[in-house]
Amino acid sequence: MAGKSINLEAKSEWMKGDGPESDIVISSRVRLARNIRDIPFPILATNKHAGEALNRVRAVLQSEELGEIDAFRLIELDDLSDLAKRVLMEKHLISPALVNESRRGAVVLNENESISIMVNEEDHLRIQILFPGLQVKEAWDLASQIDDIFEAKLDFAFDERLGYLTSCPTNVGTGMRASVMMHLPALVMTQQINRILSAISQLGLVVRGLYGEGSEATGNLFQVSNQITLGKSEEDIVDNLYGVVMQIIGHERAARQRLLTESRIRILDRVNRSFGILSHAAVIDSKEAAQRLSDVRLGCELGLIRGVDPKTLMELVVMTQPAFLQQHFGENLTPEERDVRRAELIRSKLKA
Amino acid sequence: MAGKSINLEAKSEWMKGDGPESDIVISSRVRLARNIRDIPFPILATNKHAGEALNRVRAVLQSEELGEIDAFRLIELDDLSDLAKRVLMEKHLISPALVNESRRGAVVLNENESISIMVNEEDHLRIQILFPGLQVKEAWDLASQIDDIFEAKLDFAFDERLGYLTSCPTNVGTGMRASVMMHLPALVMTQQINRILSAISQLGLVVRGLYGEGSEATGNLFQVSNQITLGKSEEDIVDNLYGVVMQIIGHERAARQRLLTESRIRILDRVNRSFGILSHAAVIDSKEAAQRLSDVRLGCELGLIRGVDPKTLMELVVMTQPAFLQQHFGENLTPEERDVRRAELIRSKLKA
Repeated sequence: MAGKSINLEAKSEWMKGDGPESDIVISSRVRLARNIRDIPFPILATNKHAGEALNRVRAVLQSEELGEIDAFRLIELDDLSDLAKRVLMEKHLISPALVNESRRGAVVLNENESISIMVNEEDHLRIQILFPGLQVKEAWDLASQIDDIFEAKLDFAFDERLGYLTSCPTNVGTGMRASVMMHLPALVMTQQINRILSAISQLGLVVRGLYGEGSEATGNLFQVSNQITLGKSEEDIVDNLYGVVMQIIGHERAARQRLLTESRIRILDRVNRSFGILSHAAVIDSKEAAQRLSDVRLGCELGLIRGVDPKTLMELVVMTQPAFLQQHFGENLTPEERDVRRAELIRSKLKA
Repeated sequence: MAGKSINLEAKSEWMKGDGPESDIVISSRVRLARNIRDIPFPILATNKHAGEALNRVRAVLQSEELGEIDAFRLIELDDLSDLAKRVLMEKHLISPALVNESRRGAVVLNENESISIMVNEEDHLRIQILFPGLQVKEAWDLASQIDDIFEAKLDFAFDERLGYLTSCPTNVGTGMRASVMMHLPALVMTQQINRILSAISQLGLVVRGLYGEGSEATGNLFQVSNQITLGKSEEDIVDNLYGVVMQIIGHERAARQRLLTESRIRILDRVNRSFGILSHAAVIDSKEAAQRLSDVRLGCELGLIRGVDPKTLMELVVMTQPAFLQQHFGENLTPEERDVRRAELIRSKLKA
């Protein structure tokens, strides 16, 4: 069964730790919201409507055009355990809304999980591309290609004046959300981050934490995305985001260099202590783990710590989330047990 | 020259980390204060008087009886650099008073530094025995033997009613101070220490830190000694101290066991984090170093940390003191530089 073959390792393409500007940019994401014109939108859909939407998507998956892009499999959420659903959430492949609120929810994934298409989430389709490093243009190109294939087979709800119609008015227009996940420890340490975040918000962009809206910026990970989907072309949105991200990268790099020249020993001490704690602690909560993994990642990028693969660090940020941990250890764990197992997992990964 | 051959390593007998009850007792010390009757006491002595006292001591050193105990060498403080003096102080072989206030101050040492006789400190002679572990009776026996040899050659100031006369009235009588250095981390962690310290003080004993009067109990090291030197025999003083120390040992062991059974994971986490920090930090001040070395020592004693020699830990507590550090690195260091070198020294010793 498709549901059984789901990849429960923290090894999605976007966590590879390579890609352009990967010293600062973890991943780039483009998501397109689309709805099928003659089926009620998911908020109003019955089970039958949702099943119909799912069938139409399934039919497109058989198309030759899509096969030329990659091999895909469709996973229905009802076939997954609660834990498997949470693991996919923690890998950013599906959303909490798909898990908690959808009828006949499903997700279409390619092998390396860079493409994830949610079905019957808030909209009938959410086409999502997730690439490592700063590849927001590349992600948009691929999303657009896939969108074209679906659009050729399905009649999408589209208004000449407004653009694509979506369940939530904030998505109307392009239906696009482009976002970039950035690691900004030096801007946080030098206390420039708030000034920069407030500047970003005046440029039509929003900033969130690792796990989306309302989530804290654990581990100094910040997700920058476009606020506006209407009245601008997709290319303009992507260009604007790219330009702002390049500026933030410049600030973060400058802050890192300043730390290296002005506070070398202090920063060396900090990243090494974090490494020492991660490789020896017997108990660690997810917030501390994320913060210390951030320190170690910075240490690697600055050449202060050697012999640690930055990829391992991003894997660990994801793998030490609650569901991942429980999946990894194959049992339900209390928060206290999770803190022990999290420490165990980090120790063993850092030793390897 | 004697002054040149001084042992600047942190390798005195008392730091060996063995001896009875060495899981808790670092060292035992007995010190006898003696004065030569026909020479003015050091506070009133001229340089000439002090030189005379020194000559009398030097003469005794040639005696066959003393030679049967061990080989000794006499080091005049004027022959030592400031740094070497401070190193001897940090090794507990000489006192700050000998360094700062004496005329013609000197110290007589045997090879392994378990015997140290200060000359022209507050009293003409301060015969000091320093043994590893709980050996306060053994230390008294040896001190008494040496005292007998000196007393046979020198006429000590002695009053039939009061006993030995000393510069400070608190030492009159036996002239003896017996003390035991204990490592009591579990009593500190379980917050029983204050109750126990106040009980001790009601038994005629005083508690000080590692570096004597007024020094804080860094690294959970507590020095318990007799308050009273008058109206009691040396044997009674030693027996009383021994008995109280055995009781404190019992409390500390019980507290360690309770930590192990009731908070095993918390204590495991604490000692391992301290080990991780000590083996990775780039900067560390002496207070933090002492605290973390205390944690690691506890971890070793409880079998939670393996592969670390407890002897190394006590060596490091001494070696990371300011003068030792500077002697080790062969240069004058600012406090900031010391914190860096201290971290360096600890890392290299723990790696070895």
